[in-house]
Amino acid sequence: MTNPTSTKSHPIPGTMRVNVLAAASVMRTEQRPVPQPGPDQVLVRIGSVGICGSDVHYYRHGRIADYVVRQPLILGHEAGGVIVAVGARVSADRIGQRVALEPGVPCRHCRECKHGRYNLCVDVQFFATPPVDGTFAEYITIAADFAHRIPDSISDDGAGLIEPLSVAVWACGKAQVGIGSRVLISGAGPIGLMNVQVAAAAGATDIIVTDIAPARLDTAVKFGATRILDARTEDAAALGIEVDAFIDCSGAEVAVRAGIRAVRPAGRVVLVGMGADDISLPVGLIQGRELTITGTFRYANTYPTAIELAASGAIQLDAMVTAHFTLDQAEAALQQAGDPHTIKVIVRPGQ
Amino acid sequence: MTNPTSTKSHPIPGTMRVNVLAAASVMRTEQRPVPQPGPDQVLVRIGSVGICGSDVHYYRHGRIADYVVRQPLILGHEAGGVIVAVGARVSADRIGQRVALEPGVPCRHCRECKHGRYNLCVDVQFFATPPVDGTFAEYITIAADFAHRIPDSISDDGAGLIEPLSVAVWACGKAQVGIGSRVLISGAGPIGLMNVQVAAAAGATDIIVTDIAPARLDTAVKFGATRILDARTEDAAALGIEVDAFIDCSGAEVAVRAGIRAVRPAGRVVLVGMGADDISLPVGLIQGRELTITGTFRYANTYPTAIELAASGAIQLDAMVTAHFTLDQAEAALQQAGDPHTIKVIVRPGQ
Amino acid sequence: MTNPTSTKSHPIPGTMRVNVLAAASVMRTEQRPVPQPGPDQVLVRIGSVGICGSDVHYYRHGRIADYVVRQPLILGHEAGGVIVAVGARVSADRIGQRVALEPGVPCRHCRECKHGRYNLCVDVQFFATPPVDGTFAEYITIAADFAHRIPDSISDDGAGLIEPLSVAVWACGKAQVGIGSRVLISGAGPIGLMNVQVAAAAGATDIIVTDIAPARLDTAVKFGATRILDARTEDAAALGIEVDAFIDCSGAEVAVRAGIRAVRPAGRVVLVGMGADDISLPVGLIQGRELTITGTFRYANTYPTAIELAASGAIQLDAMVTAHFTLDQAEAALQQAGDPHTIKVIVRPGQ
Amino acid sequence: MTNPTSTKSHPIPGTMRVNVLAAASVMRTEQRPVPQPGPDQVLVRIGSVGICGSDVHYYRHGRIADYVVRQPLILGHEAGGVIVAVGARVSADRIGQRVALEPGVPCRHCRECKHGRYNLCVDVQFFATPPVDGTFAEYITIAADFAHRIPDSISDDGAGLIEPLSVAVWACGKAQVGIGSRVLISGAGPIGLMNVQVAAAAGATDIIVTDIAPARLDTAVKFGATRILDARTEDAAALGIEVDAFIDCSGAEVAVRAGIRAVRPAGRVVLVGMGADDISLPVGLIQGRELTITGTFRYANTYPTAIELAASGAIQLDAMVTAHFTLDQAEAALQQAGDPHTIKVIVRPGQ
Repeated sequence: MTNPTSTKSHPIPGTMRVNVLAAASVMRTEQRPVPQPGPDQVLVRIGSVGICGSDVHYYRHGRIADYVVRQPLILGHEAGGVIVAVGARVSADRIGQRVALEPGVPCRHCRECKHGRYNLCVDVQFFATPPVDGTFAEYITIAADFAHRIPDSISDDGAGLIEPLSVAVWACGKAQVGIGSRVLISGAGPIGLMNVQVAAAAGATDIIVTDIAPARLDTAVKFGATRILDARTEDAAALGIEVDAFIDCSGAEVAVRAGIRAVRPAGRVVLVGMGADDISLPVGLIQGRELTITGTFRYANTYPTAIELAASGAIQLDAMVTAHFTLDQAEAALQQAGDPHTIKVIVRPGQ
Repeated sequence: MTNPTSTKSHPIPGTMRVNVLAAASVMRTEQRPVPQPGPDQVLVRIGSVGICGSDVHYYRHGRIADYVVRQPLILGHEAGGVIVAVGARVSADRIGQRVALEPGVPCRHCRECKHGRYNLCVDVQFFATPPVDGTFAEYITIAADFAHRIPDSISDDGAGLIEPLSVAVWACGKAQVGIGSRVLISGAGPIGLMNVQVAAAAGATDIIVTDIAPARLDTAVKFGATRILDARTEDAAALGIEVDAFIDCSGAEVAVRAGIRAVRPAGRVVLVGMGADDISLPVGLIQGRELTITGTFRYANTYPTAIELAASGAIQLDAMVTAHFTLDQAEAALQQAGDPHTIKVIVRPGQ
Repeated sequence: MTNPTSTKSHPIPGTMRVNVLAAASVMRTEQRPVPQPGPDQVLVRIGSVGICGSDVHYYRHGRIADYVVRQPLILGHEAGGVIVAVGARVSADRIGQRVALEPGVPCRHCRECKHGRYNLCVDVQFFATPPVDGTFAEYITIAADFAHRIPDSISDDGAGLIEPLSVAVWACGKAQVGIGSRVLISGAGPIGLMNVQVAAAAGATDIIVTDIAPARLDTAVKFGATRILDARTEDAAALGIEVDAFIDCSGAEVAVRAGIRAVRPAGRVVLVGMGADDISLPVGLIQGRELTITGTFRYANTYPTAIELAASGAIQLDAMVTAHFTLDQAEAALQQAGDPHTIKVIVRPGQ
Repeated sequence: MTNPTSTKSHPIPGTMRVNVLAAASVMRTEQRPVPQPGPDQVLVRIGSVGICGSDVHYYRHGRIADYVVRQPLILGHEAGGVIVAVGARVSADRIGQRVALEPGVPCRHCRECKHGRYNLCVDVQFFATPPVDGTFAEYITIAADFAHRIPDSISDDGAGLIEPLSVAVWACGKAQVGIGSRVLISGAGPIGLMNVQVAAAAGATDIIVTDIAPARLDTAVKFGATRILDARTEDAAALGIEVDAFIDCSGAEVAVRAGIRAVRPAGRVVLVGMGADDISLPVGLIQGRELTITGTFRYANTYPTAIELAASGAIQLDAMVTAHFTLDQAEAALQQAGDPHTIKVIVRPGQ
């Protein structure tokens, strides 16, 4: 039996394989019905899924803060694929399009949505955030306008990595990184490296990266860092470094405080990395220099920009991929993603 | 002997009385030469000086952070008066003008000055900040463009109080307070009350004020607060209050944290009150709501706006004055200014 | 027969009276079925409808630019009323709420909508813009989130006039009118007067109004203008007036050009009034002063602010109403609305 | 006799050669005293001067608008050189620094200066704008903070071309060009090409250039244009091109109007090119799309950014130089600069 909205060229099966997190550290492959797209949705056959730190955290702990995995949850939210069916109000021309999936579909009716900051919608449905399933699956439905067409110059893996790239586009936007900017980025994990690349693409001329892992710092240089500091022994402000913007991708209090000290008067601080709920901040310095501090929660309206950047070659996405796994190997993928020597691990549901 | 730049109608003496802080808690009246204006300066006969918490702090402790009173210092920086002489490059037409004195004259050459954020100039000369003398004096010289003309609708005391009003104009600007804004202000001292008035003038429709002193809260209502909360027993967020902007005028960690919790997604937090160098802030909440936090350091380009507001009657300055003292009574004035039952204490150097 | 979603207290009839524009200058009352709310909609019994210049234009000419009345069209889009029924996904608690209707419901899916500038959505459904019917009707359905609750301090007429007030909130926002602003407003019709009031509420201290009709200028003073100029004989720039912002509500080339000349360096120009498609602008002056010029197209996210302002008493809406008509008298109302001696004419569909 | 502030290594002569515009189309070399730096100034030995269209205009017509050459005027304002002496309040460490000269020194006291928009200062002293002499001279004095240090990676010619690069940095800033931007630039002369380069450096992914000269369009491609249009036969909007920002560097009404039609809703238009005082603009379209239009007048605070961009290699300045002349050949240089086949012509005063 095939799905009634299937297309001729791509027959859609009735069931699909998914990989679920049954409980902390317990994953298994299951069969589930292939979902049918609602009137404004598309059905996407998923080609590639990047693994995010949040996936690893759910796998290990079964929860992130108040989000608890109470029933089997499909992880994964950095996904790309091909549209294979469309809902009643979506043009059939979209079938066959290669797309990057923006994983959080908001309510479109609340104050935040109507102001364009839909990432702050409290009713957002975000992949792989309990109880909403994610993309470790062969197929998924999504609002048509959150499946963004990508050109052939972006690979299948790149389609999925538009998601973490969006995090950096959003952060660099809030940090007002532009031509001639001097930027300090703490934490050279995947999000830090994405920020390095976006800052470079935006014309930043000084991109200083700090981390406690020398191997990560070396990687940062490959992606555009103009200077690296070993956070264990070097302090930016003490070295006389002064930046226009500081983007924390570490979540570590010591890194946040060290970064703030290096920001020039009227500069910006953007907290991306998640760490403790409370951090002691140098308020006297923030006042004396009139620094602006903000944090990011996902992103809004970044996909078109991220796709343009990746398509133009300004950002290297494939170079960030260090390993591939099949859907059945998702658990091994999550275990490897937690390894400090990897950058991005990919799961390919179709394989 | 008279000052060579004196005018016919106002003969300027060669010496003047000043009241100096000789050491912590030691003040005395002295005679000093009347200064002569430099080429771009004016000489002002001071009519009224408001007392600021920083004056009281210097009086009590002989220092504020790294600013130490090492030699006798003239306090006072909230001053107004009349121009009685002008320097070589200033139009003589200015003689006789009633003026509000903007107390920090910047270098005009550094990066901060050239970007228009001259309050962040590191070479600023600010009245009553060691080693720069202030305005507890009969006369003072100041850059002509920092002596702002005021209309007759502003009283002598009002001229001096343009300074703390400027603090609030700057804070409300950073908080983006405007028509229909809901604003939370913690701390109903003089700066808090100025913020209440500016917020009301800017069209804010909800102005919630918190303090731990019931008498201050009652005063806040007189100046425009639409709702008051006793911070000892009431918590804005717990009461379901949600604001667009929170302006802290208390400097107290507990107030800062309580205020932040009441800010809506994408709202602003402005820290005006000075307290501990470090404060534990709810970073997770700041990220989750993408709040923007900043602090203020004095103000820039606010005097024209503050003067317009006061002249139009939108702001009540005289109503904030609770006591007057002569120059010889400056010490008594400082002692009273520290009393929680006062709002603004004024020293009148000419009396 | 009653509508199945009716409430006990307010039985909803099966049909209702509407007043349609059958062709240019031809209006008549008809019976139509009462619409049923869709799942996300509410049904509103309309209490009051303000008449806008666009209604008068459609009545006289049967079209506005490319928008042509090809079939009978219900005019009216400045409406308020009471929710009498709700769709399946809307809380029944909303029944009985008094509401102001935001007349343009956008698609929520396009780039403009997702950026928060939904007024620029090309698929917006706007009342009384062909082929979408308006509010000269006893009942209307609208998206629940575009029916904004109003407090008792706003009258029925005021509920409808939240719409033109929104136009001014939007314009003053783009003009960055705030505390101490000097604003020039050309054209003292209803939209000009709304801008006068909003500018005053926002703390503008100089509000200069120009018009060619002395009676209108007198009215402007009543609503807060601090200075009026007869545009036939007086020119703001020639009189030495310099403003931070100029808001044109006239659409007249001569007024637009005169206004621009009065704007200070780096000031703002906002074109609200609709006139010729092309206007000769002083580009050399715009460059030399680095003025910023923009235009407005309706508004977005202004209703909450407009309602707060009206509820607080900062804006007088009822004082703008000069005449009332019943639904059957809608044609007479349109005729009177074109009279220069009126400000706002109201149609009350329930009477 | 040598200048008393000369340094040991670089003896400064008492007189110098300058090339003056005596009247329209009349230039000659003269001897003049070497100026002495004021207290806050430096003396610079000029190494390279780029020729701007304004120099050519003065040469041909003896005036630009109200700026009339009434006495012999030294032209040239795109200059770099070496500091050879300093005033009393400038550190002697600056002697020997290679510098780019920002040619407009403002008053530092007016409203515009104190707001950071010093380019709009009405008392600015701008090189080669009557009656202020320019840089076709061996030496010149300038405020120390307007002589910006450059690194060795910028050539002598590049030092001078920081000036036109600044024009583009300013324009792209006002146009909000950033990562993923689609930009339309009309006019592929030197300023248009600078904008192409800055847009590319800022991460713009679509840079469409229009001109009426095919040779210039070919050059634009070399500097980063992603698409070129022959303005004589191709219209961006008609081709379905939609951009976020349009920067006019032509000054031609037809180009300005064509460009505006191609801008997306809520997009920006920046008018850089100087042409007619008045231009008929499509105001209806500007309103319907809520476009923002502004113009540029020189620049403020752009030199540090421009220098960083040039030093980093993001911008090619030397590649824009098409010919060199000595000081005595300045007239020939001006004649060639008017030739459409040249990009940038350089005068080297030291040769």
